[in-house]
Amino acid sequence: MNLADCSSHSATARLLHFGSPGAIYLRRFVGSLHVGRCGSNPTHVKTLRLRSNPPKTLTVTAAMASEAEVAASAKIIDGKMVAKEIRDEITTEVSRMKDAIGVVPGLAVMLIGERKDSATYVRNKKKACESVGINSFEVRLPEDSAETEVLKFISDFNDDPAVHGILVQLPLPKHMNEQNILNAVSIEKDVDGFHPLNIGRLAMRGREPSFVPCTPKGCIELLHRYGFQIKGKKAVVIGRSNIVGMPAALLLQVLREDATVTIVHSRTQNPEQIVKEADIVISAVGQPDMVRGTWLKPGAVVIDVGINPVEDATCPRGYRLVGDVCYEEARKVVSAITPVPGGVGPMTIAMLLSNTLSSAKRIHNFQ
Amino acid sequence: MNLADCSSHSATARLLHFGSPGAIYLRRFVGSLHVGRCGSNPTHVKTLRLRSNPPKTLTVTAAMASEAEVAASAKIIDGKMVAKEIRDEITTEVSRMKDAIGVVPGLAVMLIGERKDSATYVRNKKKACESVGINSFEVRLPEDSAETEVLKFISDFNDDPAVHGILVQLPLPKHMNEQNILNAVSIEKDVDGFHPLNIGRLAMRGREPSFVPCTPKGCIELLHRYGFQIKGKKAVVIGRSNIVGMPAALLLQVLREDATVTIVHSRTQNPEQIVKEADIVISAVGQPDMVRGTWLKPGAVVIDVGINPVEDATCPRGYRLVGDVCYEEARKVVSAITPVPGGVGPMTIAMLLSNTLSSAKRIHNFQ
Repeated sequence: MNLADCSSHSATARLLHFGSPGAIYLRRFVGSLHVGRCGSNPTHVKTLRLRSNPPKTLTVTAAMASEAEVAASAKIIDGKMVAKEIRDEITTEVSRMKDAIGVVPGLAVMLIGERKDSATYVRNKKKACESVGINSFEVRLPEDSAETEVLKFISDFNDDPAVHGILVQLPLPKHMNEQNILNAVSIEKDVDGFHPLNIGRLAMRGREPSFVPCTPKGCIELLHRYGFQIKGKKAVVIGRSNIVGMPAALLLQVLREDATVTIVHSRTQNPEQIVKEADIVISAVGQPDMVRGTWLKPGAVVIDVGINPVEDATCPRGYRLVGDVCYEEARKVVSAITPVPGGVGPMTIAMLLSNTLSSAKRIHNFQ
Repeated sequence: MNLADCSSHSATARLLHFGSPGAIYLRRFVGSLHVGRCGSNPTHVKTLRLRSNPPKTLTVTAAMASEAEVAASAKIIDGKMVAKEIRDEITTEVSRMKDAIGVVPGLAVMLIGERKDSATYVRNKKKACESVGINSFEVRLPEDSAETEVLKFISDFNDDPAVHGILVQLPLPKHMNEQNILNAVSIEKDVDGFHPLNIGRLAMRGREPSFVPCTPKGCIELLHRYGFQIKGKKAVVIGRSNIVGMPAALLLQVLREDATVTIVHSRTQNPEQIVKEADIVISAVGQPDMVRGTWLKPGAVVIDVGINPVEDATCPRGYRLVGDVCYEEARKVVSAITPVPGGVGPMTIAMLLSNTLSSAKRIHNFQ
């Protein structure tokens, strides 16, 4: 599969790379990258490649869509609203638990190094904990810390009864072994759900993972809360990362959801033909506006995990965020779609809080 | 998906249930079951259901295929021959290891209860070990043994340096907790590859399982040894069991194979349409002759994991073995297919021996 932003209109434009929540979806591009709005070229593109000679004319229509048009098109899956609902539910449960057994769920977050984006995510997670009444514990270590030092903190958190979830903010400094560090987190406190034992249990029928990774869990939760049927549907997951694509596919298929799932990835030939047959599309590939309206089956439900910043001089910050799916084209074709931002993004932290609460309940056997 | 033997010709006929090697593919049927040969009704059947009123006439053509016809059709993927090759390679390696460091790989097999089929599989595994020079250790416990007794033996084998692989023959007596028992096997000696940690590593990019489950490993090995390209191909796995379908799908997709994989299962609608698009089909569902010739894409490669005994009065034992795929129809359509028996079956034990050898090499750091 040669996937790229197919609506390029400037060979010299630059794609901005920011971290999405958890810094998990964005990939670095190789080759010339272009920036533009989709919605301008609705013809079916069989195989997309990075274009060194972009079309000379580009009619930007996306930004011109009126409110009336939006109302007449796809249902907008409001992740911000659902995340708020979930956080309210968590607040109630945290309070009930505290009143009943005097236990407050606790999340430990470790930040190693000075990355600004990572610092922002950690701050957001801390704030989110506060907002629902979960205790947060933060450890910040300098970039040049020894791996053993990180492991010591993890070990202490593993043993600390006030901590029910441990999260190590990624990426780690290059001299550290990510596998060693993530594997050191107790399976009972792995609220990110990235431990291979959790993934194995997720893949196996009749087994239950202790935790489901937050972003894919958020995708499924959106489908559930909006009442979209999954059982028996054809689902396509675009992207096969360990933290979104692969677990999302496993969730859709195994865990009582019963969809028929295909994973589309960088080696897939004619991805658009496969996506076109899907009733449910989850895209987590980190390429702006890659999935065009022509790729989508009329009436499909689209969950767009990508959060891709692209240059836009008309925006105050000089960039705007777009998903993997060309929203303006897609909303005229599909029955429902998540916006970017305000779709899956807010769900990830809500699911992290949910996993931390579940962990505390399990550890204290509180129903 | 309503999957059934679509070539039924007798409402009163009985499907025989035997265990396949490992007793893993056969399922119990619900409802009236019919027995017959496929090859008689090549029309496309959109959705298959168990038929209470089977057609009154049935022309059996399958058994009439001449040698010339076979020669003009699909390549037969000879699992028996490949398994022999692999066993010869293992024999050489076992001998080289013994000569170099004085270590002989050892496999411990536990049989609990009196099931005749299980006893046969254990005997076959023991014989296979002997044939390549691997030591085998057998424990037989009565049906009413306590779970703790089984766990004690597993613990001893975990600690025994002469044992490099531990296999607990399934199914276990009903009073035992299969999960507890399988989880007790050290991850370093889990030559069946069924531990969730192994499955998790199999599912994750950048991780390596200690062992790959034997049957799906055998399927991929057949594709490799016959030189069929997997990368970029569309693959369909029929069946999503923990021990064949799901790991086979993971193997095709994740572990350097790069196929685009769809799993078809009991809730899949119009499975034949999905199968029809596949370049590679692996079927592991345990329904005789379920996949008809019309389901298959011309030129596809078919790996048939099903080993289904069906009544046949013309056979000396009163039954014959057939696969999930209607062989006689399929071989006129596809480019290559495994026969049943003699396809995947012999590969499963060969892979068990291969995993045991790998384990011994890893434990003793022998290249």
